[in-house]
Amino acid sequence: MSFSPLVDELIESLRCLPGVGSKSAQRMALQLLERDRRAAARLSTALTASLEGVGRCQQCQNLAEQDVCRICSNERRNIGQICVVETPSDLVAIEQSGNFKGRYFVLMGHLSPIDGIGPEEIGIDKLLRFIAEGSIQELILATNSTVEGDATALYIADLLDGRDILVTRIAHGIPVGGQLGYVDGGTLGYALDGRKPIND
Amino acid sequence: MSFSPLVDELIESLRCLPGVGSKSAQRMALQLLERDRRAAARLSTALTASLEGVGRCQQCQNLAEQDVCRICSNERRNIGQICVVETPSDLVAIEQSGNFKGRYFVLMGHLSPIDGIGPEEIGIDKLLRFIAEGSIQELILATNSTVEGDATALYIADLLDGRDILVTRIAHGIPVGGQLGYVDGGTLGYALDGRKPIND
Repeated sequence: MSFSPLVDELIESLRCLPGVGSKSAQRMALQLLERDRRAAARLSTALTASLEGVGRCQQCQNLAEQDVCRICSNERRNIGQICVVETPSDLVAIEQSGNFKGRYFVLMGHLSPIDGIGPEEIGIDKLLRFIAEGSIQELILATNSTVEGDATALYIADLLDGRDILVTRIAHGIPVGGQLGYVDGGTLGYALDGRKPIND
Repeated sequence: MSFSPLVDELIESLRCLPGVGSKSAQRMALQLLERDRRAAARLSTALTASLEGVGRCQQCQNLAEQDVCRICSNERRNIGQICVVETPSDLVAIEQSGNFKGRYFVLMGHLSPIDGIGPEEIGIDKLLRFIAEGSIQELILATNSTVEGDATALYIADLLDGRDILVTRIAHGIPVGGQLGYVDGGTLGYALDGRKPIND
């Protein structure tokens, strides 16, 4: 015994969302159909509209509704700096911090040979073309601090070795507000290695 | 700074799903747009189709694609018994246990005066009509074992007081496989009150 075919199909489609199992999908489907049909209609419309309207920026690979995204086409950004991030969420996080005025390059992932994701899949050739076209002085590697993120950063740094570009990696250390007793050993190691004179 | 308008709207619409906050919605939207556009299209189609095709059974209020649902129109079901449940998921759970061969009535909620949900909202008048039309011998109240579920069951039992119908409530006690040490006092109380002779 199950629900009716249409409800079953809705439950099955909701399961493709990350972090949603069969029980959550069932709860979501029933909530949408019983209590919130307007929200369901809105979600359906938003899905169709974004599938049609959202593509990738030709320069930085970020999700964009035009050929070139708002940041790449903004003439007030510093065109000498490119910050390389893994996902659009990372880009938004850095933008929200307000500390960076350059442009971005979104890899849409990281190198992961075991999943068949090599340099081509994350658009390294596009990044090199982006660098070749502009007058880039600095490339900031802001990939995640995971094994794959670090490997991706090192791979890009190696590729640019010998060119007249400053390649930097974002700093690792104690997060602001963090208590030393709760920080893992790896982070503490980075924090000590990266120490600076107080008058710097 | 945020994503592009269409992506923002998609994130906002995903937040209407139960248990989905802003970070999860963002993760879902990016996963759908970056990695799984086919799943997004399927979800959009499923939503539209079920919004159009799924209504309520005229007899039992369950979600149904026809005027009368598959269970109500099944002539092999025992028409003398009606099991009253709160939601379609409860109905599916009982169907899957395979222990009940009668018909159902789905309240689509429970009495909750504080939320403005009274007898009319959960279709009590429809239940009474359903009972009046058929030759019902037994009404099984299988609402949840919560304050609201119990109150709803008592309310329905009161309404049918004096009529020639056996009104029963599903049993409460130790779940199968449950260990006494981990069961709460209320359940143990029910288990003791509801004890039966072993030769019964």
